[in-house]
Amino acid sequence: MTALDNLAKALSRLPGVGPKSAARIAFYLVRTSDEYNRVLADNIATIREKVKPCSICGSYTENDPCPVCSDPSRDRTTLCIVEQPQDVITIQNSGAYNGLFHVLGGAINPLNAVGPENLSFGQLMKRIEDGSFKEIIIATNPTEEGDTTALYIRHLLKDRPEINLTRLAAGLPIGGDLEFADRSTLVRSLRGRIRF
Amino acid sequence: MTALDNLAKALSRLPGVGPKSAARIAFYLVRTSDEYNRVLADNIATIREKVKPCSICGSYTENDPCPVCSDPSRDRTTLCIVEQPQDVITIQNSGAYNGLFHVLGGAINPLNAVGPENLSFGQLMKRIEDGSFKEIIIATNPTEEGDTTALYIRHLLKDRPEINLTRLAAGLPIGGDLEFADRSTLVRSLRGRIRF
Repeated sequence: MTALDNLAKALSRLPGVGPKSAARIAFYLVRTSDEYNRVLADNIATIREKVKPCSICGSYTENDPCPVCSDPSRDRTTLCIVEQPQDVITIQNSGAYNGLFHVLGGAINPLNAVGPENLSFGQLMKRIEDGSFKEIIIATNPTEEGDTTALYIRHLLKDRPEINLTRLAAGLPIGGDLEFADRSTLVRSLRGRIRF
Repeated sequence: MTALDNLAKALSRLPGVGPKSAARIAFYLVRTSDEYNRVLADNIATIREKVKPCSICGSYTENDPCPVCSDPSRDRTTLCIVEQPQDVITIQNSGAYNGLFHVLGGAINPLNAVGPENLSFGQLMKRIEDGSFKEIIIATNPTEEGDTTALYIRHLLKDRPEINLTRLAAGLPIGGDLEFADRSTLVRSLRGRIRF
């Protein structure tokens, strides 16, 4: 096991990095500068100290509570439930949402032994308790796990009819081509068709 | 600029890692263990100390000369010229070659201002001088730059007719489908057709 093999092995655990990309990155890191490698290594070594989950919403933050939870200008009557911390960034970057977030930490997935007890539903129910939320938007992924999780949230809120429960629309991606849409997407976009 | 942004920015310089993958990896590194991050950071920080170019062939190695150059069982009459250090590993892994290597450090590419003077042709000619090589295999990439580099090597060796100069065959990839072959590959496989 050489130093290059060790580095490639460590890199190949990263998401989206297979053995071939890992080897390519390892070779690249021999060609780069000491300065760049030092900065990258330092950023990796310290990220878990610097970034922690927000104690309110569960998104990643350097200050607790996170900038969204502590921003007085956000709409505190709307809550968007997402699976992962990065989903908060994605929705924030869209510029189309000004409410609060709740990060579940994943989706219900019995095959991977992820049940409701492994996700932050307890914290979610506590946040909902005081009745300040008028709308809850379910923004779990349009996958089987995301769908199961959405159904579970609907079940949890069945005794709270005063809360307007919605879910992100699923359908054809903008700029996409009908011809290349997969069957499930097409079915969803037909079932969810809207008056025009 | 948050710690996550800084990490993602550093990661996005890696080959094959775009801004989206970089963000995904950065978020992943918050979820992993301190131990994994420490090992990865340490491997990155020390790789350039541990791994250096072999003073003979130019491939990356922890001991100089590299294991291939110092292996007495290798065929010292055959030299394979490649562009990059990782090409040595690829050819070694094929198990089909038992000669020596020479790493050019790239290919001639006027658009990127890479001329022959930026590649290790001087060192190559010195290695060839004593006449011990009977065959030289050009294993540059089947690209415009690789082709140019191959032509340049042929030009360098025009006064050494005793050396058998060859180049890796280009053509249809094994397991590939004629229908999906691109035009250039098909042209090369037709021009390079062999008696069957």
